[in-house]
Amino acid sequence: MPVNLSPPDPASLSPVAGVELGFAEAGIRKAGRRDLMLVRLAPGTRVAGVFTQNSFAAAPVQVCREHLALDGEVRALVVNAGNANCGTGERGLADARLSCDWVASEIGCKPSEVLPFSTGVILEPLPMPRIQAALPACVASLGADHWAQAAAAIMTTDTVPKGASAKVTLDGVPVTVTGIAKGVGMLQPNMATMLAYLATDAAVSGPVLKALVKRVADRSFNRVTVDGDTSTNDSFVLMATGQSGAAPIATDADPRLAALEGALVDVAARLAQAIARDGEGATKFITVDVCGGSDEAEVLRVARGVANSPLVKTALFASDPNLGRLLMAIGNAGVAGLDTSRVQVSLGDVKVIVDGGRAASYREEDGARVMKPAEITILIDLGRGSAATTVWTCDFSYDYVKINAEYRT
Amino acid sequence: MPVNLSPPDPASLSPVAGVELGFAEAGIRKAGRRDLMLVRLAPGTRVAGVFTQNSFAAAPVQVCREHLALDGEVRALVVNAGNANCGTGERGLADARLSCDWVASEIGCKPSEVLPFSTGVILEPLPMPRIQAALPACVASLGADHWAQAAAAIMTTDTVPKGASAKVTLDGVPVTVTGIAKGVGMLQPNMATMLAYLATDAAVSGPVLKALVKRVADRSFNRVTVDGDTSTNDSFVLMATGQSGAAPIATDADPRLAALEGALVDVAARLAQAIARDGEGATKFITVDVCGGSDEAEVLRVARGVANSPLVKTALFASDPNLGRLLMAIGNAGVAGLDTSRVQVSLGDVKVIVDGGRAASYREEDGARVMKPAEITILIDLGRGSAATTVWTCDFSYDYVKINAEYRT
Repeated sequence: MPVNLSPPDPASLSPVAGVELGFAEAGIRKAGRRDLMLVRLAPGTRVAGVFTQNSFAAAPVQVCREHLALDGEVRALVVNAGNANCGTGERGLADARLSCDWVASEIGCKPSEVLPFSTGVILEPLPMPRIQAALPACVASLGADHWAQAAAAIMTTDTVPKGASAKVTLDGVPVTVTGIAKGVGMLQPNMATMLAYLATDAAVSGPVLKALVKRVADRSFNRVTVDGDTSTNDSFVLMATGQSGAAPIATDADPRLAALEGALVDVAARLAQAIARDGEGATKFITVDVCGGSDEAEVLRVARGVANSPLVKTALFASDPNLGRLLMAIGNAGVAGLDTSRVQVSLGDVKVIVDGGRAASYREEDGARVMKPAEITILIDLGRGSAATTVWTCDFSYDYVKINAEYRT
Repeated sequence: MPVNLSPPDPASLSPVAGVELGFAEAGIRKAGRRDLMLVRLAPGTRVAGVFTQNSFAAAPVQVCREHLALDGEVRALVVNAGNANCGTGERGLADARLSCDWVASEIGCKPSEVLPFSTGVILEPLPMPRIQAALPACVASLGADHWAQAAAAIMTTDTVPKGASAKVTLDGVPVTVTGIAKGVGMLQPNMATMLAYLATDAAVSGPVLKALVKRVADRSFNRVTVDGDTSTNDSFVLMATGQSGAAPIATDADPRLAALEGALVDVAARLAQAIARDGEGATKFITVDVCGGSDEAEVLRVARGVANSPLVKTALFASDPNLGRLLMAIGNAGVAGLDTSRVQVSLGDVKVIVDGGRAASYREEDGARVMKPAEITILIDLGRGSAATTVWTCDFSYDYVKINAEYRT
């Protein structure tokens, strides 16, 4: 059950000039569902991406990296759900390249101008004839207002499609940012995310876009975790079509960059939160805020340690203010020289740990009250510096076990 | 349900000359169960220990470290279950010291010759009057053949007491090693373990014993994980009474050391395996063997990464040979420069991943066959060196969630 998350109203997902989306039923893993998605981009579109750090990076991830390294145009993205094309060796690479060839000939561009993406079961070969057969329908359905359908076509165990839009004005020119994402398990993106696609009609130069995609990922998808497991197929790409008419942002010093970055982070963070809200088996949406750290790495380690601890997650599921487990998880994060007597922790508005011990004011009924709602915030102050971060996650329920014990049956 | 694990036959736990054990019902957390345990040691006993690396090390862990740092004799251990005395600040330290005072005056030794241990709920003050009231009964029950009762008195969510013995002959003198342990959750010992006590009547000098306890921990308790969460109270102590009559082992060059170390590792590894067999909600006992690594740190990271992945653990619960999750978990272990095309994986006697992809010979029914039994071995060869290690764990079931969602209710 997703936590306070509904499918996006298709009307709320603003078209982005220069971006069209198509979809088809390819029957890759299951019949009767849309599982192939195509994005066609206007000439001149710049694309940058970040990808999984898993050693077994899937074949499409490897091909994306190759094509993006050419620093040329990108004219299309092709995405299939149901099969990850990972652990498939040379054949997998050849299949990913073949998908690009087919898309290129369908829409009239070079194969190196196509980026391939796959998500689903690992270690199975892609059913290439089904993809080939479904591509013409994908092309035929291309439309600028198909973001919601595209979001649905890339789902695997997601229960809700995920999409968001924002508008920002750059020197008087209105610019749109729209994005979609999928992912609910095998999910602790590392320098990237499960599949996420953000497009803007702002014009952004290649070098600026490359830096921007990393910064946006670090403030959104790299801050969400469901189970601490990093997928082999994580991919997040940012597309800038330049069709808005706003003058290009060509350097990091451009004063309009902050506004655009704000809109991108806004959309990306909403998608990242949607991923945690729809986390496998989720019954609660958890925000872990850590401040007072010496550096970013340290606060992130603490936040992820708390967010991924099975003991903390099962206590959150039970609405049990089991403070000892919070203490344990903070203490396990490997913060060298942590002075525990300076650690403060609140659950929502209730101080629970003061100076490393249970708050004198703490009453179990206050803890129980703040643990009841479907949204819980855990605030941790390490009391040793000014670094801070936020991680979003969900609880760990019977249904997480059920979903993952029965995934392939 | 513990996996192929029965309570030890009391007759199988050999008394160790110089060690007596007592127990009592103190009613620390629940009435009607033995929850206080005392070990009395003969004069001249040497003790060394390793403890949790969690920043929130519990008060008794801090006092143990202080007392062991004096390098003097240890004459008693006092252990309570039901309350961890952790996150309890100055009061917790005072309480741990007070326990030592009471034991010292009961058995006639210095307070600094007593080591205190606690396990149970975190952030609650110890009910000192109950401990004081129960201590005389503990002393009155001291006996050399009470290892099984002592093992039962230190349990928390354990379903089975854990104990093991071994005999070894040092230059013709028979020497005994007996140990007990507890722990089934919040369990990935880091340089230590949940509570474990090993005693031998061999005579071992302080410096040799200190090195020995670390080596034994690294081949036993530091190789087991239930949920990847390291407790605040992990403690493993090794006691050498010297009562066997065997000449003291005073240097690392003593040729008898290997035989004694073998017996200690034998007992400790059986206890560590018992911990995984009785892991919270366990339905399977899993051995993860990793070889072909560049160094020990790397193979341990891969083994723990696989053993702790919620996706791998739920697949093991489901008896589902979900090879993709194994691939994902290996790839996530942060092995720099891993050549995935050299990675080989077997499930029991079935080759499943060859050269980083699915084995051509692999048939789903073979995978299903080896995943069925209650004991499963995963063998991973990284193909880049000669380092190897073994980690023991259990699967992740509905009951893990149930046990930990309902722990405090």
